[in-house]
Amino acid sequence: MTDLTDMGRRASEAKYELQKLSTDKKNEVLRAAAELLTQRREELLEANAKDIAAAEAGGMRSGMLDRLRLSGERIEGMAEGLMQIAELPDCVGEVMERFDRPNGLHIEKRRVPLGVIGIIYESRPNVTADAFGLCFKAGNAVILKGGSDALQSNIAVTAVLREALRACGVTEDAVQLIESTDRSVTEEFMRMNRYVDVLIPRGSAGLISNVVTNSTIPVIETGTGNCHVYVDKAADVDMAVEIIYNAKTQRIGVCNACESLVIHRDIRDALLPKLAKRLGEKNVEMRGDDRVREVLKGCVPATEEDYGKEYLDYIISMKTVDSVEEAIEHINRYNTKHSDCIVTADAEAAEKFLNEVDSACVYVNASTRFTDGFEFGFGAEIGISTQKLHARGPMGLKELTSYKYTVEGNGQVRG
Amino acid sequence: MTDLTDMGRRASEAKYELQKLSTDKKNEVLRAAAELLTQRREELLEANAKDIAAAEAGGMRSGMLDRLRLSGERIEGMAEGLMQIAELPDCVGEVMERFDRPNGLHIEKRRVPLGVIGIIYESRPNVTADAFGLCFKAGNAVILKGGSDALQSNIAVTAVLREALRACGVTEDAVQLIESTDRSVTEEFMRMNRYVDVLIPRGSAGLISNVVTNSTIPVIETGTGNCHVYVDKAADVDMAVEIIYNAKTQRIGVCNACESLVIHRDIRDALLPKLAKRLGEKNVEMRGDDRVREVLKGCVPATEEDYGKEYLDYIISMKTVDSVEEAIEHINRYNTKHSDCIVTADAEAAEKFLNEVDSACVYVNASTRFTDGFEFGFGAEIGISTQKLHARGPMGLKELTSYKYTVEGNGQVRG
Repeated sequence: MTDLTDMGRRASEAKYELQKLSTDKKNEVLRAAAELLTQRREELLEANAKDIAAAEAGGMRSGMLDRLRLSGERIEGMAEGLMQIAELPDCVGEVMERFDRPNGLHIEKRRVPLGVIGIIYESRPNVTADAFGLCFKAGNAVILKGGSDALQSNIAVTAVLREALRACGVTEDAVQLIESTDRSVTEEFMRMNRYVDVLIPRGSAGLISNVVTNSTIPVIETGTGNCHVYVDKAADVDMAVEIIYNAKTQRIGVCNACESLVIHRDIRDALLPKLAKRLGEKNVEMRGDDRVREVLKGCVPATEEDYGKEYLDYIISMKTVDSVEEAIEHINRYNTKHSDCIVTADAEAAEKFLNEVDSACVYVNASTRFTDGFEFGFGAEIGISTQKLHARGPMGLKELTSYKYTVEGNGQVRG
Repeated sequence: MTDLTDMGRRASEAKYELQKLSTDKKNEVLRAAAELLTQRREELLEANAKDIAAAEAGGMRSGMLDRLRLSGERIEGMAEGLMQIAELPDCVGEVMERFDRPNGLHIEKRRVPLGVIGIIYESRPNVTADAFGLCFKAGNAVILKGGSDALQSNIAVTAVLREALRACGVTEDAVQLIESTDRSVTEEFMRMNRYVDVLIPRGSAGLISNVVTNSTIPVIETGTGNCHVYVDKAADVDMAVEIIYNAKTQRIGVCNACESLVIHRDIRDALLPKLAKRLGEKNVEMRGDDRVREVLKGCVPATEEDYGKEYLDYIISMKTVDSVEEAIEHINRYNTKHSDCIVTADAEAAEKFLNEVDSACVYVNASTRFTDGFEFGFGAEIGISTQKLHARGPMGLKELTSYKYTVEGNGQVRG
């Protein structure tokens, strides 16, 4: 039986130990865990084989099976991920601000761990090591609730992580896995405000929306991306074509892929034939409004629904506008506040777009595919936040921390 | 009938206008609103008189009536509050970080408004002007849901604020008031994720816990304070007595007042008689553990429940400990992560306490009463956050903002 209260208590106790750990000790644990994952390759593959067999018996489709499957290479990937996290600078303890008050109080704003982080995720067992690594490096205890499909794999990975912690003399409760696959346990987990400081869901839109709706714990919403590229009248057409081609087709199943195109009427005729040819190389289905279809004969008509849709597929919607203002309005209506781009040589239009489009990441003349913790140089990524509270856009280690104020005086009282 | 969806849409439209407003324009609105509040004194007092009459008829007790009551002086206070907000620097648009990537992308992290803020509060009508002022200066649209007791007053104040906005040529929908007193409307409001970016509850523990439990919108929890003062063995006894006297009695009904005392056994005998004498001046009831009661004969015994209690009254609990470690453990078990203090001349004990006590504000040798946006020099305060996400401790204008990343390139695509 899963005793969530006991897990919560253990995590709460662990967090006090973890917040005091030196950077060297944390890195020692991460490297030990990486080594142990490699050593325990066979065990992990065996556990994973059980999950795969059950999933196949249950008729899981091949895309999902692929996410679930571990391989020697993927285990190496997990280990490498932990090694990389060990290389990252430790931001915990950093003094973010310091100031003195007229009454002599000296105040510092110091970066501290969040405390206990809950991660709810789906079938990828590599998230287990990855989420642990990031949360741990930022000084947090983590409670993991993975998909039931990956349970045996997650149990095996967690056992290795806990063994590494133990070997380094650090509390094993830095990482705990909820093994129950009972839905009511997940629901209870989402209401453990007393023990869990923040919940981060990672996975499908359905999973995320379930957590946002049912959690009473603060949630960082990582999310869906209905990302737009707007081709301004002052765009370089060839640049626009290459950016769209990359943002749409370089990897289709990801949140920073382009799903929707907005086209200034004055550039429509120059753009569309070249674009159709380039996207045709990957058989992208183009769906356009009436003005697009005047140029692209036989193009599928785009509906209202298309504009709001994250296809995650070789499909793109297209809307023609009369101005940058109309483009911004359209994007702000349909986007998911993830990543949107303007292609233009007009600095004024670019700045207007940057200021007025309400997204985590707003681009000028570059592919939306760069919205990523590694591409931003954070060295890691726990997800892309599409909410405005706490963290927005790619989240690295700093986004897994909070702060406290320390106030030092010599007897000050309030008058 | 309250059409929340319509209000949400209006607020969403308003936010795009507000995020573009110049600092001068925002200050013009704030000053106009301040002036108009003063001019409309009689109207406001009349509206408030209706609320007061209804509340008296309903048998509201005098403390609550006092919170509800407006006076010429309180209206002046609201106006002055807005004038002060006009004087504060505008942080919106600030470039918080800028960096270049090896591929030539130039990335900036720019401070932007949160967007639409919902405030749920209780009987104080002055919160209406105050919350509007802070949210507006930070470029946000605000939807207010005040207590039903203060409805007529809130309607009158909101009308004045909207008139000031209109007079300055700014959208009135920068501030909207939910006039319905129907509980189901409040519940619906807490689920308007599509339109509202963050909810801030201000008021009693019951109100806050209701919002935390029922909101699907991200909440900033402002909160209760079970604040501790720990008197270390190396404390200056007179300093400790004055800090405790101030933190306990300077204002009893506030979240940064001291509710609980932790005493090192070695200083017990020197501290308690002096402290009892000083607190006796205000007839503070002292409740202690057995070791306290050895010294303070006749002191009320402290129960487990006392240690976790926010009295907001002339009562204080006392616990004796053998070490700073035990003090930290006790405080981390019972505090509400608000403000806790150590009184000591021992720098090592102080630093240990600062690092290990899990609170928004941790003090050395100063009263917990300083946890306050004005005392911290923020020039304003929307509340004290007791959660770790987004903002912790006193929240001023910066805490009412988010950020976005702008990414500028010259055709970069991802390989």
